[in-house]
Amino acid sequence: MVSVVAPPLVMELIAPITGIIALVVALYLAVWINRFEPGTDRMKEIYDAIRVGSKAYLRRQYKTISIIAVILTLLLYGAFDFGPHGGVPYVSLAFLVGAAFSLAAGYVGMDVSTRANARTSYATHKGVELPMKIAYNGGLVMGLFNVGLSLLAVSVLFYAYGQKPELIIGLGFGASLAALFAQLGGGIFTKAADVGADIVGKVEAGIPEDDPRNPAVIADNVGDNVGDVAGRGADLFESMTAENIGAMIVGVALVAATGNAFFVIFPLLARAVGIFGTIIGLPFVRAKNFTNPMIPMRNGIVATTIIIVIGLYLLVTVTIQSINLFFAAVIGVGASLLIFLITQYYTERGYRPVEEIATASKTGPAVNIITGFAVGLESTGLPVLVIVGAILGGFYFGSNFVAEAPALFGAGVAVDPLIGGIYGTAVATMGMLSVAGVILGMDGFGPIVDNAAGIAQMSGAPKEVREKIDLFDAAGNTTKALTKGYALGSAGLAALLLFQAYLSEYAKAAGKPILEAITVKIVSPEVIAALFIGGLVPYVFSSFAIRAVGKAAFQVVEEVRRQFKEIPGLMEGKASPDYSKCVDISTLTAQKQMIIPGIMPVLVPIFIGFTLGPIAVGAFLISATVSGTMLAYMMNTGGAAWDNAKKYIETGVYGGKGSEAHKAAVVGDTVGDPFKDTAGPSLHVLVKLINTVSLTFVPLFVLYALML
Amino acid sequence: MVSVVAPPLVMELIAPITGIIALVVALYLAVWINRFEPGTDRMKEIYDAIRVGSKAYLRRQYKTISIIAVILTLLLYGAFDFGPHGGVPYVSLAFLVGAAFSLAAGYVGMDVSTRANARTSYATHKGVELPMKIAYNGGLVMGLFNVGLSLLAVSVLFYAYGQKPELIIGLGFGASLAALFAQLGGGIFTKAADVGADIVGKVEAGIPEDDPRNPAVIADNVGDNVGDVAGRGADLFESMTAENIGAMIVGVALVAATGNAFFVIFPLLARAVGIFGTIIGLPFVRAKNFTNPMIPMRNGIVATTIIIVIGLYLLVTVTIQSINLFFAAVIGVGASLLIFLITQYYTERGYRPVEEIATASKTGPAVNIITGFAVGLESTGLPVLVIVGAILGGFYFGSNFVAEAPALFGAGVAVDPLIGGIYGTAVATMGMLSVAGVILGMDGFGPIVDNAAGIAQMSGAPKEVREKIDLFDAAGNTTKALTKGYALGSAGLAALLLFQAYLSEYAKAAGKPILEAITVKIVSPEVIAALFIGGLVPYVFSSFAIRAVGKAAFQVVEEVRRQFKEIPGLMEGKASPDYSKCVDISTLTAQKQMIIPGIMPVLVPIFIGFTLGPIAVGAFLISATVSGTMLAYMMNTGGAAWDNAKKYIETGVYGGKGSEAHKAAVVGDTVGDPFKDTAGPSLHVLVKLINTVSLTFVPLFVLYALML
Repeated sequence: MVSVVAPPLVMELIAPITGIIALVVALYLAVWINRFEPGTDRMKEIYDAIRVGSKAYLRRQYKTISIIAVILTLLLYGAFDFGPHGGVPYVSLAFLVGAAFSLAAGYVGMDVSTRANARTSYATHKGVELPMKIAYNGGLVMGLFNVGLSLLAVSVLFYAYGQKPELIIGLGFGASLAALFAQLGGGIFTKAADVGADIVGKVEAGIPEDDPRNPAVIADNVGDNVGDVAGRGADLFESMTAENIGAMIVGVALVAATGNAFFVIFPLLARAVGIFGTIIGLPFVRAKNFTNPMIPMRNGIVATTIIIVIGLYLLVTVTIQSINLFFAAVIGVGASLLIFLITQYYTERGYRPVEEIATASKTGPAVNIITGFAVGLESTGLPVLVIVGAILGGFYFGSNFVAEAPALFGAGVAVDPLIGGIYGTAVATMGMLSVAGVILGMDGFGPIVDNAAGIAQMSGAPKEVREKIDLFDAAGNTTKALTKGYALGSAGLAALLLFQAYLSEYAKAAGKPILEAITVKIVSPEVIAALFIGGLVPYVFSSFAIRAVGKAAFQVVEEVRRQFKEIPGLMEGKASPDYSKCVDISTLTAQKQMIIPGIMPVLVPIFIGFTLGPIAVGAFLISATVSGTMLAYMMNTGGAAWDNAKKYIETGVYGGKGSEAHKAAVVGDTVGDPFKDTAGPSLHVLVKLINTVSLTFVPLFVLYALML
Repeated sequence: MVSVVAPPLVMELIAPITGIIALVVALYLAVWINRFEPGTDRMKEIYDAIRVGSKAYLRRQYKTISIIAVILTLLLYGAFDFGPHGGVPYVSLAFLVGAAFSLAAGYVGMDVSTRANARTSYATHKGVELPMKIAYNGGLVMGLFNVGLSLLAVSVLFYAYGQKPELIIGLGFGASLAALFAQLGGGIFTKAADVGADIVGKVEAGIPEDDPRNPAVIADNVGDNVGDVAGRGADLFESMTAENIGAMIVGVALVAATGNAFFVIFPLLARAVGIFGTIIGLPFVRAKNFTNPMIPMRNGIVATTIIIVIGLYLLVTVTIQSINLFFAAVIGVGASLLIFLITQYYTERGYRPVEEIATASKTGPAVNIITGFAVGLESTGLPVLVIVGAILGGFYFGSNFVAEAPALFGAGVAVDPLIGGIYGTAVATMGMLSVAGVILGMDGFGPIVDNAAGIAQMSGAPKEVREKIDLFDAAGNTTKALTKGYALGSAGLAALLLFQAYLSEYAKAAGKPILEAITVKIVSPEVIAALFIGGLVPYVFSSFAIRAVGKAAFQVVEEVRRQFKEIPGLMEGKASPDYSKCVDISTLTAQKQMIIPGIMPVLVPIFIGFTLGPIAVGAFLISATVSGTMLAYMMNTGGAAWDNAKKYIETGVYGGKGSEAHKAAVVGDTVGDPFKDTAGPSLHVLVKLINTVSLTFVPLFVLYALML
């Protein structure tokens, strides 16, 4: 046993202080945005309607989630803290903080997004430089607030709980539970409103997108903020939090082997590097004289990535010292760039997949759907191979570290290649997630410019303004697809990390050496059964999510049809529709429909743990991760490709708007909506939630198995 | 070590003799069918066109498959037989026989089906009793020929190869390779023709299904025979063959432990029981005075099942003697009935899923697709739980057998509970497959009556005849969906059996005790990578299969549009279309498009075996089995539900034929076509092919790993 030397205090303070810096910069940017005018009276009216609707929805949703979270907190207190922790609420408090912060991250994102939308729209009357800055900074507020809050929460709880990462896993559980409900509820809301608005408005009444005569138009714009912003915000908060804790748990074994305490806090420091890179990279988003909004954003990402790689190199040399582990981190960064490029290929016009769907639209909606489905299925291939490559590469450099270890930490230090390799994959995951802040910022950009375009249309802005905003809107669609690809790739790696952490904790709870705990009798019926059930859960979950959109959209359609029929003068623009009614209907249905699929991922692993045992839970987790990742890629990429195929036809090819090909493409786009904005993104959260639930409950699984 | 007593010769002869009996009965039924008249001159003309087209397609396809099979035979001879077997072509000959017999099973099915179609149609002019018998017996020819040929091949090779089941695995490999190409090529052909005929005929030209003016109508009817019959025939031949060999390999360990040689040949005998049950059950399909063709068929199945259960009880008592293993067999039989009922719930009108899709059609094609997709995703749930239940139940009784063993086979006999349990799941699988003959017969019924309805329509049969035939056609749709559910459930269990056989063979090749060989380091990067790649392969494969249909259908559509435009008087019925042109186009495209997805499942496991090692192949196999089973259920059931929702609307609800709801439902039906008839059924074969490839190659994987 080597003795462990604690890192100097200044290193321990870096993570919480960086977290605070991120929050301060986010606040600064938010205040900067708020200084601008939200526009004309008509724009303010719409702006207020969207803000009121968004807030009303989130209040309603947070009430539901809070009730579930409080009940679970009490149960967790009874199960974990009352007895074993002598009444100190370690697990239950961490859970509650995780849930609350996850929701807060979503709320702040929604708040700044609903402030930035009208301001972006109004600023476009004067040029393209300022709106670009407002929208990009608006997204970055969510990005920085998110990474900052997560880093602060993890680091403070880690030190407050006596530097035991396994005690703070409740934080990840709470965050992922709240995030699943937020993403699922928000996803149902936004697509019910969107599909409902499109079917009656665009298809039946023949009025354009975002037309103020459409009673569902405000609900549609609210949806962007509560689904894409608040939902995704909560999602990424939990993703970063859970994976950070998972990496720390995996590091414990290396601290024991090397005597270097940095192996546990390296994940915190790597994230701090990511935050500095994001902030320093901000000025590189130069908004002067651009023709395509993607160009300044790409410059920003490239600069941030280079700064982060340099920062990681410096960090590695002063902390864990292994050049091999630096290579592992670079592999993670490289994987995120590769997945970016692949997603771009599959979802942007100009490449084969979108062209193929557009061409297929000429033969009608059925062939459009068949082709889009084929593209979705195919699109799982390369990203999954990148994930596999990152795992193998991270593991390779991690196990190479074993040869370095005696020279770095003393001749007696022996690290098992498997332990070293697992840490290598954890470092690769941290490398991938170090760029999360700037990517999250790009993700927030999309809904802001989408709303801005809606407000311009509804307020009757001049044609040239709308054309400029459409440029932003198109870029926003691209960033949304790209960041979803990234979020999913990182979710796959993060889930894997949590799975490894699960096995570590299982080994500890069962009192077995880790190398023994991870060997599984692969033909035992419990393992096979768990593998099948793990593959199944994402399918059944997606079924609930997609059906919920169908049900809610059906009700919105009925309501919009009713208003068109019963409100005299609505179609002629002489009377106003009752916007709030559509918001209410979407809200109520989303709240009702999210309960069963939201609770399922909590109950299934617990049920398996108590019936088939803790080893079977491990098999369940990896199988659900694989199955969920596949389905999510298929749905996200397929959905985005359908969307962009429709937009491609709208540029005039194959007859353009109004042609038969366009009608077919609209069907494909509508089918893709619940895929890419409800089921797909919720599946990211699902795979992490099942892992954090299992990580939290593994001591009880072991205890119960021993009692039998 | 206990000494092994060989079973009496009469028991050894039962399997091959029963195989011959099945072939004789099949021949008798075929001759019986051939005695009837194929109908009027016009009917004979169509009958000939379908037969000529079907034979031309199969000749072309078999040529392609033969070239691939011969190349592989030579490679296998070089790799396995030239050195290790001293030039005796054990593996390569078995492979060639498997491929040839699999194709023969498909060809015979096609031949009798294309004879029975017109005869069924013509017999309907006189009543419903005779056509019911012709169609049912026609299906049964394929069923009996298939099970008979498979049993004969396995048992003869088993004895010829010195009772070493692992030497005959090449038979399974050859059969599944040929079956994959047959099912995939046939599936692409049939759906390209079907989708092409529907899109131009029904949607654009507004002429009914099977209208003789439609240039793709013969190709459509040919498709039923080469896809549904020849493809499915080859599929089920390989399924029974591979699973039979797998169960025998698993039995080897029990022969060694108990000294009872019956544990290896029990699978052969159980299948003989199944054949007797099928033949004895035949008279119970009483075709007198029925209103729904499902009723006589159900009676037949119930009678056959009861006979088989009694037969299995007698068989167990005289051979392996364990009442626990009899219970395991009953679990398998019960699982097949349960999956039947579940599939019925999800695909027949009168239950929630189909009604739900029909209702959704009122809101247009997009909501129809969304809802159907949700149904497909959901429909994976119960069948997978039944499979899991069968595994757990079979294992439970199998491990209970351990306690019985000393009393049955001598006080010194000790069987490991895991070995006993695995054999229990093998017996459950054999139980499930013992009813294959009668189910396969029902499967063949579908395309015969489908063709019969087409011939009636094309030959201008009187309305009352067509109405009677439509009754059969509707029943045929139901049986096709039911048998597909059964085929898939049994494929899941069969793949699992092959996976267990793989690990047994791996243990032997590596010289490890089996209990050591089956423990896997679940976090090792090779295993994780293989799990991801295993999950991925079915997705990429399906993408190729579905896209192929899209491409081929596109070409058929262009050709049909061309003929309508360029042949004067075609629409008025004054000129004949060029049917053979559409057959040619579908044939060529299907042949071209099946190569890459057909080769992929052979290359990927070999690649993994030589790069990531034999253990990783095990992880790959189970993950691909889980992923493939899920996707296939989703596609099969979703597709059938869309189809029946359309048929439900055609009965007059929601406006009936020609309404907006009906148009939406037609889109859903067309989307479902490549799902349920191309990708879905090919996935069954895929999961078995990857297993048989790996089983064949495992000695080389181990050799190569040792050389490193």
